[in-house]
Amino acid sequence: MLQNIRIVLIETSHTGNIGSAARAMKTMGLSSLYLVAPKVLPDEQATALAAGADDIVQSAVVVDSFDQAVADCSLVIGTSARSRHLSIPSIEPRACGGQALQYAQAGAKVAIVFGRERVGLTNEELLKCGFHLSIPANPDYASLNLAMAVQLVSYEIRMAMLAFEQQPQTALVAEAAEKPLQQELEFFFNQTEQLYRRLDFIKNNGVMPKLRRLYARADLRKNELNILQGMLSAVKKKCG
Amino acid sequence: MLQNIRIVLIETSHTGNIGSAARAMKTMGLSSLYLVAPKVLPDEQATALAAGADDIVQSAVVVDSFDQAVADCSLVIGTSARSRHLSIPSIEPRACGGQALQYAQAGAKVAIVFGRERVGLTNEELLKCGFHLSIPANPDYASLNLAMAVQLVSYEIRMAMLAFEQQPQTALVAEAAEKPLQQELEFFFNQTEQLYRRLDFIKNNGVMPKLRRLYARADLRKNELNILQGMLSAVKKKCG
Repeated sequence: MLQNIRIVLIETSHTGNIGSAARAMKTMGLSSLYLVAPKVLPDEQATALAAGADDIVQSAVVVDSFDQAVADCSLVIGTSARSRHLSIPSIEPRACGGQALQYAQAGAKVAIVFGRERVGLTNEELLKCGFHLSIPANPDYASLNLAMAVQLVSYEIRMAMLAFEQQPQTALVAEAAEKPLQQELEFFFNQTEQLYRRLDFIKNNGVMPKLRRLYARADLRKNELNILQGMLSAVKKKCG
Repeated sequence: MLQNIRIVLIETSHTGNIGSAARAMKTMGLSSLYLVAPKVLPDEQATALAAGADDIVQSAVVVDSFDQAVADCSLVIGTSARSRHLSIPSIEPRACGGQALQYAQAGAKVAIVFGRERVGLTNEELLKCGFHLSIPANPDYASLNLAMAVQLVSYEIRMAMLAFEQQPQTALVAEAAEKPLQQELEFFFNQTEQLYRRLDFIKNNGVMPKLRRLYARADLRKNELNILQGMLSAVKKKCG
């Protein structure tokens, strides 16, 4: 369903940013890239920074205008660093991921639009968006690189997809076979208490409950209990 | 509280990555950067890519070893692209942000460690971590750039902080103050290994990693480590 979600870059100045954005998209499973009037068409710099994601650069759709890039979409989200008081609903990356996935999963197309490196989207472009995406960055230094912003948004889309996929199908915890039996655990605790009382370390009833809690949290495996039991036997043999 | 959370980069090859990581950190309000034995010290390339975040590059702490970078931390999270079956709890960026914030907010120090560009962290380093961070990337192309990974993690830390600030002072989980420092844990593991080698229980290198995993899962408290350390001393006194 991720193929229904496209990343749109407007008038990108640096082809390296196109490559880095493609790489960021691919790490999260996105593949549809639209370039609106890039200043320079993708070149070797784009390929170099795309690393293994140059297939996405190569299959990028190049168009002349914002309108062309989003025409067939049912949901258009435009990134905006500043709040411009355009009274269009604002959305953060997490909610953006959820919205985008919901549309995509219903078969509708979604565009997430990133503006020019320095000046972002124009007011006219922003007014064509259903939501304005704002990344909750450090107010003293909100200067996210373009590809970094693409990475965050792509990540949140993937997280939304994974959450969606994870519904019922609870994992069968087949770990049980690796777990010690209760009687094996009790044997270990009893041996521990006897030995350390003899060694004068345990003198009251406060220690064992703490050890039990610790090992309960550790959720011991059989082979781990064997090691602990072996350590105990080694001490007993030498000085029990 | 974000100053309690440090980003640790291990043996970085490209100074540009140091700069980009610094920029990514700063956009999310993080400022503490540790460099472990960088292949090249930060240079103009680092400054150029840091953009306005070169203050973070300049104040980066350069140390020789993993241990030095995390010694005073109560929570150490290491990034790991592959699941290496080390059985140390795995964590995703979102939960990582929550955990890190919880500790930081209680005044404890947190390290999030990123490995070498090509080969990541060594198994030895991963065994010293309380959690392994794995980014839920596209299984067919999981090649995140180092700074992109730093960006995602820093973003989730900021999101956790914003969520925390929005809650009207919920229970302060002061657990972090109860956690041992990494150097205390290392001391315990070293003492354990020495003693049980003398007792002829440990004869190869298979046991210690298993014990490390077990105690990483247990998420030891200070008082529990004190008990384990006390048991060790009792054995040593009688038969060490």
